[in-house]
Amino acid sequence: MTVNQTSVSLDDAQRVIAAGQAKADEIESPSNIAVVDAGGNLVAHVRMDGAWIASIDISINKAFTARALDISTEDLAADAGPGGQFYGIHASNGGRIMIFAGGVPLRRNGQVVGAVGVSGGTGEQDKTVAEAAVVAI
Amino acid sequence: MTVNQTSVSLDDAQRVIAAGQAKADEIESPSNIAVVDAGGNLVAHVRMDGAWIASIDISINKAFTARALDISTEDLAADAGPGGQFYGIHASNGGRIMIFAGGVPLRRNGQVVGAVGVSGGTGEQDKTVAEAAVVAI
Amino acid sequence: MTVNQTSVSLDDAQRVIAAGQAKADEIESPSNIAVVDAGGNLVAHVRMDGAWIASIDISINKAFTARALDISTEDLAADAGPGGQFYGIHASNGGRIMIFAGGVPLRRNGQVVGAVGVSGGTGEQDKTVAEAAVVAI
Amino acid sequence: MTVNQTSVSLDDAQRVIAAGQAKADEIESPSNIAVVDAGGNLVAHVRMDGAWIASIDISINKAFTARALDISTEDLAADAGPGGQFYGIHASNGGRIMIFAGGVPLRRNGQVVGAVGVSGGTGEQDKTVAEAAVVAI
Repeated sequence: MTVNQTSVSLDDAQRVIAAGQAKADEIESPSNIAVVDAGGNLVAHVRMDGAWIASIDISINKAFTARALDISTEDLAADAGPGGQFYGIHASNGGRIMIFAGGVPLRRNGQVVGAVGVSGGTGEQDKTVAEAAVVAI
Repeated sequence: MTVNQTSVSLDDAQRVIAAGQAKADEIESPSNIAVVDAGGNLVAHVRMDGAWIASIDISINKAFTARALDISTEDLAADAGPGGQFYGIHASNGGRIMIFAGGVPLRRNGQVVGAVGVSGGTGEQDKTVAEAAVVAI
Repeated sequence: MTVNQTSVSLDDAQRVIAAGQAKADEIESPSNIAVVDAGGNLVAHVRMDGAWIASIDISINKAFTARALDISTEDLAADAGPGGQFYGIHASNGGRIMIFAGGVPLRRNGQVVGAVGVSGGTGEQDKTVAEAAVVAI
Repeated sequence: MTVNQTSVSLDDAQRVIAAGQAKADEIESPSNIAVVDAGGNLVAHVRMDGAWIASIDISINKAFTARALDISTEDLAADAGPGGQFYGIHASNGGRIMIFAGGVPLRRNGQVVGAVGVSGGTGEQDKTVAEAAVVAI
C-alpha cells in the first residue's frame, strides 16, 4: 500500500505569498508571510519592508502549526487557553506551536497540502492576510 | 541496599500500543501513541496513518510527563493552570511537560513502571485511547 | 502544477523495523530503530531490550538526516569530517544532523520516500541492521 | 552622532534570490536560497522543488553567518577547523554558525548590507550559486 501525499511546489508557495502581500499592502499591514509543505517544512518566506523581526519566526511557526495540526491557529486558540482542552500545547514541539490567529491550512480537493503563516499586524489583520493568501492555492 | 526498578520491555510497550491502536481505530481518532519506561525514556512509538505531525512530540512528552511525575496528564492539568499550585510547570524540563489529557502511568502491582502518551484527537479521545492502552500492561 | 510525494505508511515503517530487528537479533546488537516519512517526520520507533538510551535520539535523527539530505549517514560522514566540504554540518538543524553510519534512505522506484535510522552498536553493526531494514520497503 | 545602516529591501532580496535560482537551474543544483538584512535577520527564502529539507536551516544560517561575521562561510572555514584560530565557533550562537561554503556577504559601496546563503549541492555548487546571487544586489 502506497501513501501518496499531495504537497505544494515553490510556484504554489510564491503565488500564495503574492496574494497575501497584495492584501497586506491593501490593508497597510507589513507582514512576514511563510508557506510550508505537507511535511511542515518551509517552502518560501518573505518579510515585507518594515515588518517586525520577531514575526519571521512567528510566521514560519504559524504555518508549521496549521499543517502540523491541520487547523487554523485561530481555531486552535479557542482550545489552547487556560481551561481549554489543549492548554499548554504552546510548550510542545520545541516552542513551535503558535496559538493565535494567522496560520491557515492550504487545501486541494479537501486535502491539506501545506499551510500559510502570517505575522505582522493585529490578529485580525494577520487572519485577513492569511485568508486572502490561501485562496491563491 | 539495592534498588530494583520494574520497567517495561519492548514486548510490553508494543502490546500497550496495539491496544491503544485498536481503540483509536474503533473511535476513528488516528493517533500517535508512545510508551516510555521507568526511566522516562522512549521504548516505542507509532504514528497511525493520517495522525497529526505535531502529535509526535506531544505523545512522547505526554508519556514522559506521566512517568516523570507519576500522574496522568489530565490530573496534572487540574493543578497546572493559572492559580494552580503547579502553574508554570509546562515551561520546565525544556518544554517536555504536557499538561493536557492523554498521558497515563503504566502500573504493575501498584508500582509505576512506565507510561503511555496519546495525541491525535480531542482531550476526551486521547484519554479514551490511553486508558484502553494501559490495561494491556 | 501539483507536487505528488510518495511517502511511507505505518505498515511500511513497521515492516522495515521488523526486518531491522531480525538482523539486530541475529548479530546480537540490541538497537533503536526509527523510520521517518518523506517529510522527515517520525512514523515509528522501537528500542529493543537492552539498547542504549542515548540511541533513542540518535536513531530518530539518523533517519531524519538520511531523508533531509537524501544520503546515507555513512556517505555523509565522508564529507562532514575536518577538511571535508560539509565540515560543521552536524551543528545545523538544531543538532539533528547525524554524521556517522546507520541512517539510510528508503526508496521506491528510485524516489526517496523516507528513511530508517539505527543506533545501538558499532558503526558497522548499525549499518548492517539499517541495510537489512531498507530492503523490506 | 547617528548610525546609519544601509540594508536590503525585500525587492533587493528577491532580485538576489532570482539571480541565484537562475544559476542553480543552469548548473542543475536545486537549492535553498536565503537573504538576511544588515541585522542578520531573514528577509526572504525559497526552497526550489526537489531541494533538501535539511538545507532550509543551513541556507538561512549560512546567510546569518556571512553577515554576523562579515565574511564568506568558505573563508571562515579556513579558520574554523581543528587547529584554526576560530575552531569551535560552530558551537556558538545556538548552532547558527555555518562553516562551509555557500554564505556570502552582500555589499554596497564596500559596506556589508546583508548576506545570501545557499544550500543544496556540493560546496562548490553552493558557492557558485551564491556568487551569482550577490552580483544582483
